[in-house]
Amino acid sequence: MLENSEIFVIGGLGFIGCHVVRSLLAQGCKVRVMSRTKVPDAQIHNMFGYQANLKIVTGDFTCKEDLLPALAGCDTCIHLATTTLPSTSNNNKIFDIQSNLAGTVQLLEAMREQNIRKIVYLSSGGTVYGNPIHVPISETHPTNPISSYGIVKLAVEKYCYLFQELYGIQSVVLRLSNPYGPGQTGNRIQGVVPVFIEKALTGKSIEIWGDGNVVRDYIYIDDVTSAINAALCYQGQETVFNIGHGTGTRLNDIVDALKVLIGQNILVEYKPGRSLDVSKNILDISKAQKCLNWSPQVDFEAGIKAVISSLADEQVAKKEFS
Amino acid sequence: MLENSEIFVIGGLGFIGCHVVRSLLAQGCKVRVMSRTKVPDAQIHNMFGYQANLKIVTGDFTCKEDLLPALAGCDTCIHLATTTLPSTSNNNKIFDIQSNLAGTVQLLEAMREQNIRKIVYLSSGGTVYGNPIHVPISETHPTNPISSYGIVKLAVEKYCYLFQELYGIQSVVLRLSNPYGPGQTGNRIQGVVPVFIEKALTGKSIEIWGDGNVVRDYIYIDDVTSAINAALCYQGQETVFNIGHGTGTRLNDIVDALKVLIGQNILVEYKPGRSLDVSKNILDISKAQKCLNWSPQVDFEAGIKAVISSLADEQVAKKEFS
Repeated sequence: MLENSEIFVIGGLGFIGCHVVRSLLAQGCKVRVMSRTKVPDAQIHNMFGYQANLKIVTGDFTCKEDLLPALAGCDTCIHLATTTLPSTSNNNKIFDIQSNLAGTVQLLEAMREQNIRKIVYLSSGGTVYGNPIHVPISETHPTNPISSYGIVKLAVEKYCYLFQELYGIQSVVLRLSNPYGPGQTGNRIQGVVPVFIEKALTGKSIEIWGDGNVVRDYIYIDDVTSAINAALCYQGQETVFNIGHGTGTRLNDIVDALKVLIGQNILVEYKPGRSLDVSKNILDISKAQKCLNWSPQVDFEAGIKAVISSLADEQVAKKEFS
Repeated sequence: MLENSEIFVIGGLGFIGCHVVRSLLAQGCKVRVMSRTKVPDAQIHNMFGYQANLKIVTGDFTCKEDLLPALAGCDTCIHLATTTLPSTSNNNKIFDIQSNLAGTVQLLEAMREQNIRKIVYLSSGGTVYGNPIHVPISETHPTNPISSYGIVKLAVEKYCYLFQELYGIQSVVLRLSNPYGPGQTGNRIQGVVPVFIEKALTGKSIEIWGDGNVVRDYIYIDDVTSAINAALCYQGQETVFNIGHGTGTRLNDIVDALKVLIGQNILVEYKPGRSLDVSKNILDISKAQKCLNWSPQVDFEAGIKAVISSLADEQVAKKEFS
């Protein structure tokens, strides 16, 4: 169904983006990726192999002059980019609004001008709801974010809906839980899973903020990719879907899994909890299961194994080069 | 309770603002009003009489350099200003975001810096909900605005909540229905009531977009003022309240009322309906009644009579000067 369509991916060189682009190319799509900085061909080749259907465009998605020519002729836009993080967005709320909100509205206006008829927008199931009143959290749960990041994601969702209502641009918003998988780096703030595994593999101490009982919904990257594919194919009227595994995992559960899979001698250091963390977040994914005909396929243990294997390979490669 | 407190009012020279400022002064408050343009003393005197407790500060609320000194020493901020209208905000969404959203977040940051501990923010019960699934609309109704104006109001609400949660600045958000009353001008887009009355008084044709069965919740200005006073006194944890009359009135009902109060020979011209109008909006005000101990006191007929009397006086004054 997606074959021969041309898809514009913003954030296509990030962790999720790389997986999405590979999946789209494998399905026979043409893919255009916008990147803020010029990326050498060798690096692109290293990420995706030689791909006649892949085009990288250098430009800033918040800049209309960059966007208009870049979008021309595409069928659909997938927007995965963000300029801020949940943990630090409160330190510069104005920048968050200017870049992510005004930038994305600019994108929607440019899509309208170029007659792009669909957007798939990656929102955040971990921040738009704020402190949950109950779990699992369905899409109708109140939305009271406790970070600027969450407010801006929510406002973008509302503009997506507005553009669908006013101008007929189909919008599918995916409120994603915590994604993890190969391709995440263990030394960056992309989530705890690769960080914990990297520490465990290198014999360093895993730092846990709080008592380790914070519950999150972790989703394996392949399940994210399949959800985005399902969103691309979706033709219905619904606009907002939770995308997660639908189950809760404590930080201590991750440590326990790593003890079984890597070894018992893993070091853990508990530090005072951060006030910004909600204590429990598990998404109700039944709407996506029903409407998108999608379900997560990878359970946490299998996913963790894949990440361990990937990061262990990297360790070996690093040692060979050093 | 409000006596001797110093209140900063943004939008204090507008239709609602004037009434609020008069009410605050009458209660013994000190009031500081921020105005974008320098207003002559004679005009201020004309609006409020001589008031030792009133100070007008010239400045732009979206400009931090103007705000910081202007806010110093105040206890509370009432934010009534907007730079856009529901009907035209979709024509410049970026401006709406930059001025009203980024501007108000700037204000909240300035309040934090100046240790102002409370904000009363005027939101919009007519736009934040979008097309109602059911009426009357309670605060928990889904919020899917069909105008940028509504999205920005909603996003500001979320930032008010964020500042309460993170920094302890108490936020009271009032989702106002359609206010009307003396002081609205009949030749501006401040609502249909004064426009209809002005047309009827001058023998011109009343233009109705659609079939006149559009239902709105109209609230008299004195009931708005008393709601803002109740919000100023409120010390509880709730942040969002619907403020309306809680009843629905069709455009045709207004015409019928004017026929009774002014005369049967009122001309009405029906024009094709605007797609942006939601068909029915009536607010459920039970939360405000319970928590703020507030209720509207003026019914539609009494309110309309007051506006007719006020606009008729203006007509007489105009004729005397012409």
